[in-house]
Order: sequence, then C-alpha cells, then structure tokens
Amino acid sequence: MTNAEYSPGLEGVIAAPSTVSYLDLEKEEIVVRGYDLIELAQKRSYLETAYLVIHGHLPDERETMAFGERLKEESALPKGAYSVLEALPRQTNAMDALRTGISLLASYESPEVLQDNSTAANLIKGLRIMAKGPVLACNAYHAMKGQPFVPADPKLGFIENVLWMVHGKQPDQESTEALDLIFTCYIEHEMPNSTFAARVIASTLSDIYGAITGAVASLKGPLHGGANEAAAMMLLDILKQGGPSKAEEYIMDMRSRHERVMGFGHRVYMRRYDPRAYLLKDYIPKFTHKKPEGEELYAIYRTVEEVMFRETKLYPNADYPIGFLLYLLDIPIPLFTPLFLCARIPGLVAHVVEQHADNRLFRPRVLYQGPRGLHPA
Amino acid sequence: MTNAEYSPGLEGVIAAPSTVSYLDLEKEEIVVRGYDLIELAQKRSYLETAYLVIHGHLPDERETMAFGERLKEESALPKGAYSVLEALPRQTNAMDALRTGISLLASYESPEVLQDNSTAANLIKGLRIMAKGPVLACNAYHAMKGQPFVPADPKLGFIENVLWMVHGKQPDQESTEALDLIFTCYIEHEMPNSTFAARVIASTLSDIYGAITGAVASLKGPLHGGANEAAAMMLLDILKQGGPSKAEEYIMDMRSRHERVMGFGHRVYMRRYDPRAYLLKDYIPKFTHKKPEGEELYAIYRTVEEVMFRETKLYPNADYPIGFLLYLLDIPIPLFTPLFLCARIPGLVAHVVEQHADNRLFRPRVLYQGPRGLHPA
Repeated sequence: MTNAEYSPGLEGVIAAPSTVSYLDLEKEEIVVRGYDLIELAQKRSYLETAYLVIHGHLPDERETMAFGERLKEESALPKGAYSVLEALPRQTNAMDALRTGISLLASYESPEVLQDNSTAANLIKGLRIMAKGPVLACNAYHAMKGQPFVPADPKLGFIENVLWMVHGKQPDQESTEALDLIFTCYIEHEMPNSTFAARVIASTLSDIYGAITGAVASLKGPLHGGANEAAAMMLLDILKQGGPSKAEEYIMDMRSRHERVMGFGHRVYMRRYDPRAYLLKDYIPKFTHKKPEGEELYAIYRTVEEVMFRETKLYPNADYPIGFLLYLLDIPIPLFTPLFLCARIPGLVAHVVEQHADNRLFRPRVLYQGPRGLHPA
Repeated sequence: MTNAEYSPGLEGVIAAPSTVSYLDLEKEEIVVRGYDLIELAQKRSYLETAYLVIHGHLPDERETMAFGERLKEESALPKGAYSVLEALPRQTNAMDALRTGISLLASYESPEVLQDNSTAANLIKGLRIMAKGPVLACNAYHAMKGQPFVPADPKLGFIENVLWMVHGKQPDQESTEALDLIFTCYIEHEMPNSTFAARVIASTLSDIYGAITGAVASLKGPLHGGANEAAAMMLLDILKQGGPSKAEEYIMDMRSRHERVMGFGHRVYMRRYDPRAYLLKDYIPKFTHKKPEGEELYAIYRTVEEVMFRETKLYPNADYPIGFLLYLLDIPIPLFTPLFLCARIPGLVAHVVEQHADNRLFRPRVLYQGPRGLHPA
C-alpha cells in the first residue's frame, strides 16, 4: 500500500470476511445472518435474535427454551466478583467497572477451558459472558451507589431480569417489550470499533474474555457507545436551559462552537437514516407518559432532529432514540452504555468464534513520519 | 476497496501515521524516534529509552533523574488493588491478573483526569501505568502462589525494582543490566497487534487505561506475547526428553505434526534476522552459568536454531533469546509475558498519546459471505 492509498481510520477498508452481518447501504438494510435486523426486531424476541446471531439460524421453540434456561443457569456471579465490585472505589465509571468485571470472570474458568479457542468452548464461554454481563453491569452500578446488590432472579426472562436488577422490582410488560426491542436493535452491527477491537485481540489467539474486555474498553468511548448517554444528557440539559423553545438556539450555539451533537450521523450510513433509529422513533410517543417531563423532552427531541437535519442533513442514528427511550424507562444514565455492551455480547461472541475458527493475526503497518538517522551520543 | 484488494490480517495495510517507530526492512533497522533501537540498547538505559519513546527526545541527565524519581513516587499500588489481587482465584493466569489490575487502576483516577485525553493528562496517566505495571505483574504472581506481597522499594531503580519484586532480594548488577537490555529490546516495535489494539480502542476517545487494558488482552495471545514463554518451555521440554542430542528429532517431529515452533519468524521481518535477536544472542553465554542446566539448554538452543534455519530458512525473533535469558535470570515462566507487557508500556503510551492528539475513529468494513434475503416466519 502506498501513502496515497492510506485510509484514515481504515474507512472503507475490508478488515475480515464475515457471515455474521453486513450493512447494505444501497438497500438501507442491516443484514444479520441473512435477515433484515428491523424485521427481526419487529417479529422476534431478543433471545431468538441472540440465538440466531450466535448460532447462525433462527431457533425453534425448543431451542429458544433451552437457550433461555442455560442463560438462567449461568446468571449467578461468583462470590468473589461481588467482593471485587465492593472493593472498587465509589467513583468508578460504570463502564470501567464492567470492564474490570468481565476481565475478572476469566479467573473463574478452568485454565483448560479458558485457553480452548474451539467453537464449542467459545460458545460455552460466550453464553456465560452473555448471562453474567447484565448482572455485573447492574450490580457494579449498585455498588457505586452504595446500594444493596440485586442478583439475577432465575424465575425471570433475560430482559425482565435486566429491568429487575436495575430497579429491584418486577417490571411491567410494556417496559420489558421496549427494552427487548432496544436490545435487539443493539445486538449486532457489522464491524464497529468494539467488534473490530475484539477481533484484533482474538487474532493473537488470546481468549474470548480478553477480546470482550477490549470491546468494553472501546465501547466506553464517547465516539462509540458513549453516544446514547450524551444524547440523553443533551435533551435534559436543553430542558434545564428553558425547554422546547430553547432547543433550536441550543443546537445553533453548539454548532457555532463546533461542538459535536451526539446521536446524529454515522461513519457508514453517512447521510441516510439509520434503520434502527427509524424503527425506534415510533415507539417514543408510547413511553413519554412514563416521566412527568416526558412530553416536554419529546418536543425537544423533535426540534433537535429538525434543526440538525436542516443544518447538517444528518439523520439520527440509533443512539438518539435509544438514549431517550432508556431515560423514559427510568434506566439510570450511567447504565446506558453498559447495557448497550450487554446487548451487543451475542454479536461479539459470534465475531470471536468466527475469528478463532479461521484466524489471521492482525498486524498492519504505520506511515512513518518521524525523524531518521539520529545517533545517541 | 474491492474483494481482490482485501488483505488478510491487514498485512501490508497502513493503519495510521506515526512518529514513534518504524521497521525499516531494507536497512534491517528498528527506527525508534529516529534512532536505531539496537544502538540505543547498546548505549542507553531502559529508562532513557523510555523517556525518548514517550517524549520524543533523549533526556539529559536532569530529565532522566526527574523521570526516575516520578516513577518511584508513582510505584505504590492503592491498597484496594492488593485486596483485588487477593480476591482473585489462585488459578488466575498471570496476564489475566495484570489485565484486571490495569483495568482496575482506572478506578483510582479522578473522573476529570480519567476522561481527559489531552497529551498532558495522558503523559501523567501513562507514567502511573508504567510505574505500577511491574508492581501489579509481580504481586499478582505472588498472590497466585500464596506468597507474601513484595511492594516496590522506592530506593531502587526501575529495573532493579522489577528483579527485587520478583525475587524479594537485592539483585546483582549483571542481572540488572541484562534485564535492562531485554526491557529496551521490548520497548517499542511499530504496530504489533497489541499496539494496534490500543490505538483502535483509543480512537473511540476511550481513555488510556482502557486502551492499555486491551493491549494486555492482545499480548496474552500465543501468537504475540505468549511466544517467549512457549520458546522457553520448548527448550525445557527438549531437556526433559533427552537433552541436546534429542533437539533435532524433537523439532523434526514438531514439523511433521505441523506444529508451530514459537520464537521463529515474524510477519514483518519474514526471512530476515530480527535485529533484537541478533543483539541478544551474544549475551546468552554470559548467563548460562546462572543455572546448573544452563550449558545444556544453550546447546539445545543452538541446535534448534540451526535445524529451524536449515528446514524453514526462518531466523529467531526476539522472543527466542529473551525467553531463554529470562529463564537464566530465574524469572518464573508465567511472568515472561507480563514483564514483556510492562517493558512495552512506554511504547503503548506514546501511541495512545499520538492517537488522541490526531484522532480518526477506526471503523473498517467486512467482506460479507453469509446468506441474504431471509425472512422470519
């Protein structure tokens, strides 16, 4: 590759073959194992879609049931993990706690299973990480707040359990359905930075825990998973600054200061509407009643979208409606990115399985721009 | 990029501009900030080279002294970190313990400093990670062995301290010099997988702790940092199987089973001699007396090198002599890869600083090879 061919951020560069998913920009479709993700989100549960992402085919009723049961069986955290969460300084960022926690889980695998990168072993370990991820995320949050732990309730379904562990009370069906939809929208998305980080790490034949720990580190970044939090925080800040009538001015001010408005545009979609954002925006009006300020925030939400399109021709990406929906579902904002990561675990597992099954070490080069020919005295 | 242009493992693809280092294959030179790494290893200490890697210029005496003092000041681990090491199951892999430990260190930064990706803040955090890395690595090892902790001794120099923390006794000068040389050889190497993983993660504007945590995960892999361990284990296994006279047969058997002989060849160097391996091989005879089986192992070492060259035309890479030298220095084998990581921290810090200072999110694409047009029932 010559200098002229260097593509900053590897934009447009193919990093790996994959059968997991593909962003088809011409058809504006997120293809997941051959299916349209939006159709899956409308017709199938998160659990069924997770099975599809990991195993490559949609499960029948028996397979879905068995998958759900296995997740319940694996949802208990080792005692030592709770001790570590308690030992973390209270100021710990929720994503950092999740990163430390997932890294820690590797310590509880037997060394033989831990270093076994076969598909069979990766599927077992991947399911454990998927089962324990939300338990770690929610309980790290409680630890940081000095609140009592809320372990998973093995009577509840996977998504119900997430809401149970966040709020410590039985969730209503409407909220469970909304979170199921959000988790499905987040489940897999071709080769975003976190998935790429996981595959880069896995390509040294390092294990799946290390690969997913790297993905947590990546997703923490404000240019990636942090965007859903930033979008919700902005809506709340506009409310504080005067409400819907101030929204246009707020955005124009941000733009004049060259600040990035999070939740708009996407490297790959560029100037098209993210299909997930298009699907999810219609669910917002059903949930605005859940918060006293819901309607006012929704007016802000729409104005910001209009102003952004008028000024930049950028559409919202998935993080914009999801940030708002998670807020309406009363999920604490610091949990937004950790739950995004949890929702993405099936996708990450599928990519690590794929990388290990047909591996080639990632080892690119640099374009050296430093000095030459120096000698130490 | 079309399918035809897809380069597996991003081989030959330029991932980023850099002023940190460059592998010049024509001149067979590892260029670090303009200097030849081998010349630095011969003429300058690890501490001076670390300063050069991080700051871009060789330090004068005052700068070296101040740098060493800052490292000493930052070498104490928070109490909570020792509690976490104690809470880890004893079976924990040494690299996993280091990964969890470095991830954990982020919890002790104030949130403002933690999320500050300016060069000034990254240099402060990077120095902390460099100072605490070996303390974590060595004490995680002691925790796994049920041995008492050996905190850093602020009276000792950086490399002396590593040996002090490994063995719990004052090191001799000869060993300190050898480990200094090994650390310098490992300090920076353009864009290996771990450095790439760190930059990929940093490009979401995630912080330096997350980026280096990802690098630990990467370096654990047997295709990367695990190679020094594997090389030493092989020499010891040949000794057990019958000694030098069995070495040729052992390698021929491995080759007939299509097993990879670790410590030979390198993606970038291909069929040339890794300059670090060329430098280090001459130090081995000085240290064979340190172990009763040293001379016999050295005979095995030379035979394996000869057979490998005869059969594959591959030369040793740095991991081959380093694995053997670390063994002769009585470093426990599980610490080989963690210490490689610790030696590489200045390089990782320099790359994260560079990535954050002129960032572009890494977000490549896939070559989709899965089905299309499926619909859920």
